[in-house]
Amino acid sequence: MSPQRKLLLLGTFVHSKTQQSLDIFHNAGIAVDADGKIAAVERDVPDLSEAKARLLTKLGWDEAEVDVTQAADGQFFFPGFIDTHIHAAQYANAGLFGKSSLLDWLETYTFPLEASLSDLSRARRVYARCIRRTLSHGTTTAAYFATLDVAATNLLADLCLSMGQRAFVGRVCMDRTEMNPAYYRDASTEASLEATRQTVEHVRRIDPGFDVVSPILTPRFAPSCTREVMAGLAQMHRETGLPIQTHLSENPGEIRLVAQLFPESSSYTDVYHRLGLLTPRTVLAHAVHLSEEEAEVIAREGAKVSHCPCSNTSLTSGAARVRWLWDKGIDVGLGTDVSGGYSHSILEAARQAAMVSRHVAMNIEIPRDDDDDAAAAEEKTKEKERVKLTVEEVLYLATRGGAKCVGLEEKVGGFEVGMEWDAQLVGLSHVHDDGELHHDGGGDGDDHGFVDVFGWESWGERVAKWLYNGDDRNTKRVWVKGRLVHRRR
Amino acid sequence: MSPQRKLLLLGTFVHSKTQQSLDIFHNAGIAVDADGKIAAVERDVPDLSEAKARLLTKLGWDEAEVDVTQAADGQFFFPGFIDTHIHAAQYANAGLFGKSSLLDWLETYTFPLEASLSDLSRARRVYARCIRRTLSHGTTTAAYFATLDVAATNLLADLCLSMGQRAFVGRVCMDRTEMNPAYYRDASTEASLEATRQTVEHVRRIDPGFDVVSPILTPRFAPSCTREVMAGLAQMHRETGLPIQTHLSENPGEIRLVAQLFPESSSYTDVYHRLGLLTPRTVLAHAVHLSEEEAEVIAREGAKVSHCPCSNTSLTSGAARVRWLWDKGIDVGLGTDVSGGYSHSILEAARQAAMVSRHVAMNIEIPRDDDDDAAAAEEKTKEKERVKLTVEEVLYLATRGGAKCVGLEEKVGGFEVGMEWDAQLVGLSHVHDDGELHHDGGGDGDDHGFVDVFGWESWGERVAKWLYNGDDRNTKRVWVKGRLVHRRR
Repeated sequence: MSPQRKLLLLGTFVHSKTQQSLDIFHNAGIAVDADGKIAAVERDVPDLSEAKARLLTKLGWDEAEVDVTQAADGQFFFPGFIDTHIHAAQYANAGLFGKSSLLDWLETYTFPLEASLSDLSRARRVYARCIRRTLSHGTTTAAYFATLDVAATNLLADLCLSMGQRAFVGRVCMDRTEMNPAYYRDASTEASLEATRQTVEHVRRIDPGFDVVSPILTPRFAPSCTREVMAGLAQMHRETGLPIQTHLSENPGEIRLVAQLFPESSSYTDVYHRLGLLTPRTVLAHAVHLSEEEAEVIAREGAKVSHCPCSNTSLTSGAARVRWLWDKGIDVGLGTDVSGGYSHSILEAARQAAMVSRHVAMNIEIPRDDDDDAAAAEEKTKEKERVKLTVEEVLYLATRGGAKCVGLEEKVGGFEVGMEWDAQLVGLSHVHDDGELHHDGGGDGDDHGFVDVFGWESWGERVAKWLYNGDDRNTKRVWVKGRLVHRRR
Repeated sequence: MSPQRKLLLLGTFVHSKTQQSLDIFHNAGIAVDADGKIAAVERDVPDLSEAKARLLTKLGWDEAEVDVTQAADGQFFFPGFIDTHIHAAQYANAGLFGKSSLLDWLETYTFPLEASLSDLSRARRVYARCIRRTLSHGTTTAAYFATLDVAATNLLADLCLSMGQRAFVGRVCMDRTEMNPAYYRDASTEASLEATRQTVEHVRRIDPGFDVVSPILTPRFAPSCTREVMAGLAQMHRETGLPIQTHLSENPGEIRLVAQLFPESSSYTDVYHRLGLLTPRTVLAHAVHLSEEEAEVIAREGAKVSHCPCSNTSLTSGAARVRWLWDKGIDVGLGTDVSGGYSHSILEAARQAAMVSRHVAMNIEIPRDDDDDAAAAEEKTKEKERVKLTVEEVLYLATRGGAKCVGLEEKVGGFEVGMEWDAQLVGLSHVHDDGELHHDGGGDGDDHGFVDVFGWESWGERVAKWLYNGDDRNTKRVWVKGRLVHRRR
């Protein structure tokens, strides 16, 4: 790769200040060095030319060595999204799940598609499309499940690197003979671990510092794996520090199956805990039906949860309780879980996280018509309000929450000096006086989506409108580590 | 308006055969006469030129008097969507609802915006945009709530007629002094009825046969209205046959309020029933928390329900049970309920109907670990499966179900001879061999959305992919009554 030019970004910036609040600052500038790191942030300046001048002076940069991007009026920079759980191979099945739930969905839709990607031309087509589409929706980091196949998994890593998406790429381990279809399983425990090592070595060759692409150890889920392969992956984690991803407590049928297969364990979580897979670098997808005890173990071990609202509803898995997970001290990010989830958009996942939290709220019964219970009723009413997630909270989940989940909170998810420039430029649609659409197009050559700004909205309201109706048309440009990786045409 | 040219539509057509199944037919042709009526449907022909020749011969039409639209490979014609409940005035607030629920949402977000639309330039901007956007998402018929203001409501009717959207336009009646804000209520019961008559007369002037635009009698909801205004509107219905729309049983707080305000009634439904508002031409929005008795009254009176899944979740209202309503023999359509619902897309409403039905399913508890209850457990398991809505069922709700809801089932919602040509042409995105996006653009000048077809999908799967990830970019053209009212550029 040729060395990158430095960047100056000028305009309005929006990112999470805390879990509950957004920081929105205008007429500001951010300078990004040739390594993609934020070198300076200039706030509270009267105008953009002033911001630019101050940054250049402060850093001693010559304007000639810098590419300047100025957000247009009404546009804003936002951190890139982090998808903490997505099956790249299943991208081709987005929207296909019928009335299935987890276990029959795997047999009917998922395993046949995944197996078919050992054909590398097919894998290239599906993986490249998945990366291109997720980039175009602002996903700058993705934690991918690939398939069993080493060559296809390595191809996914190659494509992420060349297309510039920060990624964790996992070859899926499935070595349990009786639980996986004969046409789609590892030949043995040793073969499963060896294939994992081959992918780790491949990624080390193409990106030695794991700066953009990193391997991730990926036991599919307990029912697919022998104790030996899970223990082997845990050992690999201890030797290498590589992160781990798997599924946990998605569906009641799955949980009963795990109890049958692992009678020595007190819970689904305990299966992973005993085998050494619960670590601060572990991403557990779903975590819908956890007991208090399971949540406490996860919190104690520092493992993370990837909340996948779209998938959990689509497959009738259940409604995960994000507020409750947060109360327990567990870090949570968002996963699209394509194709259990039908949408590859993290903005859509954020919307659906808000919606699922409202279903959790609606399931809280408030006692009525009993004066003795007035205090209990009041408490339930408060709790019902409290469990709902706000606009600010779901956007936190989509950015800094996700960054924590994959261990990148020092690098991405916000706009502080020393972090890397993983970001998107967002533009909304302005409503003309006659209300009609005018395809003047500007430089974009396409329309601007259907988030309609009338002009009287506050900035917080614009962000809310974007959350609830935004799509890839609002994501005008996307950068990873300072590199422009997507631009709408 | 100049007389319309005849139409020939050639290609693949998809519409609901029954509530549970789609009819997908290829190499077919539909002829539409100058009144916008389907004159002939030609199926099972070997190719499109044959379909065209047969139709022209059968009808004795000369090719010169006909505009031909041929669906490209992979495209299909689908009936226009019917939005059975949408507040045009609230379009400007889409996505703005915070953590509110119904009653505080009305005070905080809704009444101020509605009141502000007595400024006609503001009303024009919001209404024109609402119509343009809903047309662009394939909504060919909308049942609109406007505001209290007669001039602005009449403007909405004018705009629907000139932009070509089939619409029911309701001036909102809110005459109850203590329950509506002083800045936004009718001056008196008589003033409320008189203002309603003014809008009815206006619509009669601009569209005497109510062929495209019809008035609809619109008591906002029981708490906003006196008994007298509701009885007066019921009387107007009996005299004119005009349809009625209102809200019913959306939120527990609202239901308690209705019980306080109308102590003589045995239920919320009974308020409307006693006053003569439950008729076969009545659309009841929401109907989330009905008792068995209420559902039976609604079914007996033949009133219809507009299911608004997005709104019901966003405002934490509850999860309406479509399967249960169907079991009771009630006709159901879909409503976006903008801006209780954040999206004006009926395709999105259909998706969310599928999702909400899964939340209804998830709330069915299956008894465990008790052999005595094995039969009960099996029954609950079956019920859990049964309440989920399929792709076919939610698309039925969006088309024929909605048509029944607004009394247009003989005219729109499907492709039979004698029905009117309210339809959309749908196109999906084809994935190239390299997986990359190629903005070759075709004649469209924009991208094709993100419903990705790899080529191996069945037609049923293509439709499912469209349902779950489609947006306005997939709706290439829209016709109402044979008139082309939207075309993507």
